[in-house]
Amino acid sequence: MQTPQKIAVVGSGLVGTLLAIYLKKLGHTVHVFDRSEDIRTVQFSGRSINLVMSNRGWKTLEDIGLEDEIRKIGIPVDKRGIHLQDGTFVAQNYGKDGDAIFSLSRGVLNRRMIDLAEDAGVEFFFEQRIWDISLATATLHIGETERGEWTDLKYDKVFGADGAFSRIRHRMQRQSMFDYSQEFMKIGYKELNIPANADGSHKIDKNSLHIWPRGNFMLMGLSNLDGSFTCTLFMPFVGENSFEKIKTETELAQFFEKFFPDTKEIIPDLIEDYFKNPTSYLVKMKCYPWTFEDKIALIGDSAHAIVPFYGQGMNAGFEDITILNEMISKYGDDWETIFKEYEISRKPNADAIAELAERNFMEMSSKTADANFLLQKKIEKWFSDKHPDKWMPLYSRVTFSLQPYSEALAIGDFQNKIMEEVMQMENIEGQWNSVEVENLILEKLKV
Amino acid sequence: MQTPQKIAVVGSGLVGTLLAIYLKKLGHTVHVFDRSEDIRTVQFSGRSINLVMSNRGWKTLEDIGLEDEIRKIGIPVDKRGIHLQDGTFVAQNYGKDGDAIFSLSRGVLNRRMIDLAEDAGVEFFFEQRIWDISLATATLHIGETERGEWTDLKYDKVFGADGAFSRIRHRMQRQSMFDYSQEFMKIGYKELNIPANADGSHKIDKNSLHIWPRGNFMLMGLSNLDGSFTCTLFMPFVGENSFEKIKTETELAQFFEKFFPDTKEIIPDLIEDYFKNPTSYLVKMKCYPWTFEDKIALIGDSAHAIVPFYGQGMNAGFEDITILNEMISKYGDDWETIFKEYEISRKPNADAIAELAERNFMEMSSKTADANFLLQKKIEKWFSDKHPDKWMPLYSRVTFSLQPYSEALAIGDFQNKIMEEVMQMENIEGQWNSVEVENLILEKLKV
Repeated sequence: MQTPQKIAVVGSGLVGTLLAIYLKKLGHTVHVFDRSEDIRTVQFSGRSINLVMSNRGWKTLEDIGLEDEIRKIGIPVDKRGIHLQDGTFVAQNYGKDGDAIFSLSRGVLNRRMIDLAEDAGVEFFFEQRIWDISLATATLHIGETERGEWTDLKYDKVFGADGAFSRIRHRMQRQSMFDYSQEFMKIGYKELNIPANADGSHKIDKNSLHIWPRGNFMLMGLSNLDGSFTCTLFMPFVGENSFEKIKTETELAQFFEKFFPDTKEIIPDLIEDYFKNPTSYLVKMKCYPWTFEDKIALIGDSAHAIVPFYGQGMNAGFEDITILNEMISKYGDDWETIFKEYEISRKPNADAIAELAERNFMEMSSKTADANFLLQKKIEKWFSDKHPDKWMPLYSRVTFSLQPYSEALAIGDFQNKIMEEVMQMENIEGQWNSVEVENLILEKLKV
Repeated sequence: MQTPQKIAVVGSGLVGTLLAIYLKKLGHTVHVFDRSEDIRTVQFSGRSINLVMSNRGWKTLEDIGLEDEIRKIGIPVDKRGIHLQDGTFVAQNYGKDGDAIFSLSRGVLNRRMIDLAEDAGVEFFFEQRIWDISLATATLHIGETERGEWTDLKYDKVFGADGAFSRIRHRMQRQSMFDYSQEFMKIGYKELNIPANADGSHKIDKNSLHIWPRGNFMLMGLSNLDGSFTCTLFMPFVGENSFEKIKTETELAQFFEKFFPDTKEIIPDLIEDYFKNPTSYLVKMKCYPWTFEDKIALIGDSAHAIVPFYGQGMNAGFEDITILNEMISKYGDDWETIFKEYEISRKPNADAIAELAERNFMEMSSKTADANFLLQKKIEKWFSDKHPDKWMPLYSRVTFSLQPYSEALAIGDFQNKIMEEVMQMENIEGQWNSVEVENLILEKLKV
């Protein structure tokens, strides 16, 4: 058992709130601060990509007994539903039978988690703006405005769970030997909406992650409990097909008519949504170190903000908590070692999922519309079903296993080299499930 | 002629001061701010790597008629003087006869430049701490402390020439779509000193850049006008041979006795210098964009901080001024276009010199002690002397030409591939200047 500490968690998002529950159950006093209003009291929409919970996230919830609570508010999604431009629809299972990710509305999930945290005894302080932190004394500086009066609040530990633009990290960044990078993507996104049918049912299959892949842009849809879908249009800011090119209602209508004709019926408020909702940015952020002595630790997006294309942002943040909790179990009151081992363990895995997530945009937006790619996936699945001990596809490693991301990335690259050779076999379309293919893969796996 | 503007330059370093002279001569009102004291009133030492001026820097000085003033305070350096561990000394010319870089003391140069700027009518404001800037109105916020009272000073344009940790950039960085990275090197540096002889002469050849290459660390020495040398020990912070390992006078003496025995006589105050002078960090910094509308521009280290191993930091910063001045000549009062074209032109070249500078650490610290590398350089020089129209070595392109850095990097990589093949020829030591070698290179150059 640890000696009780007075701990501040900055940020009441998903990672901050779940971390607070963990710390509270360990016997600490836990205060969660957020500069925004209590999300339970406000409408939350307009710039959210729906979340998917997969095995890493479930593991963190399971370990603290919250899995069942959260499963109630999600919808299992076991396949990609690919809408090609010619109207063809292709379903592609994500894994083996029973393997599914869970679609969750960010707002619904976050509200539920804050309720659960309050039930556990965590105290929340909303609309409290933290402008700075004194690292050596774990003292938060809070005030109405950045240049106005500040109140100092001293803690034993402070966790920065305050997202990609973390104020806690902002202070760490001004220290020597702090490595940092932020890079904005050339692709932005906009939220659209498929409403429920009048009877509350879903207009399209709720158990598919719907993709309309169109090369360097795509539309995506994930189901909500209320029968609606949260859709996201990912598209370059500038260029041939881009947000810049769609300025008028006519341009918008023509664009959707050309590229997404089958959405006309299901996105009735396209024009209103498109011009009302903001075009949002995507940022990649890396930094190191993540901790300061035994006082401060970054967690989740404040330590590693990634693009959303692997559905792993929240899962990676939750896995941070799992690893931090492991280190707590191992090192007790030695917080300096807990923090050091936590960052050493997590950093390579955060870098790996950042890489995987970025690569996955091309897979989703472009390759899913490519017959060769679909065939490759089919071969991988076939071989994996025959030799489950020898081959787990990369997507399954990342999504349905707890293997460290860095290992998944390395093995995925190795598998991909093998599949490149397989795809170059003569008449691969005709002999994709032949003994020759099986033997070639088995041979290449011997290293 | 441009319409006169009220311009603030933040930073009175080399780039800020020279830029101020350019702007003043264009007819603008120019105020230079610096948070430090006037460098002319203080002793400047302890953490300076001597500067080398090469052709890009001279070009910027020439264009404004300052070349002769600065040439007086420098010492031409036309070769590397390589001190091997076994006591052997190898001299390696930097270029053709007459090609030389100029060794300059940072303090001496900076003081002279500020004098020249004041003569030109630039106004300097020292010990003025700029904490923030309002980008849209080019308003500086100045005060004693970050949290205290601030005075607002409004300008038409603000240039951030305030170095790798620029406050001006710091504000730009908090905008969407601003890409930024900082990375600290695993290698630090410490200044040491070779004093002049009693008669004011230099103890070792003043026209050589002295290197003691020792693998992953090295000692370097550059001459000063007063007969002394500013030496720099570059070494990892941690590891086998590292700053961490040298904690006592005995450890220091043993380390120098083993690796730099020939410095015993010439660095008499080794122990005092080593423990008095700080161990300094090296940081790489990249960002983009460099400008904000027609109001704000970053220049020099604040836009692109690089490691010092190519001797190009100041030269790259001066070349920024040359390009900015070209854009001013071209676009007159259209400052938005001036700034846009300036950053578009400079960014790829800043990235290229950053890459070249980082690679050059290995060349200086390790390859200069490698017989194969010295042979390769000899072959390149021989071929280049025979075919000056066909081959200019990379070092000469970077140092003695005005070719954009990005082109130099690309051609250098191409040349290096050719030289790899040459070095694999049988008995290359015996036939290094043969017709066979000449023909192979000529053949490979046909693309």
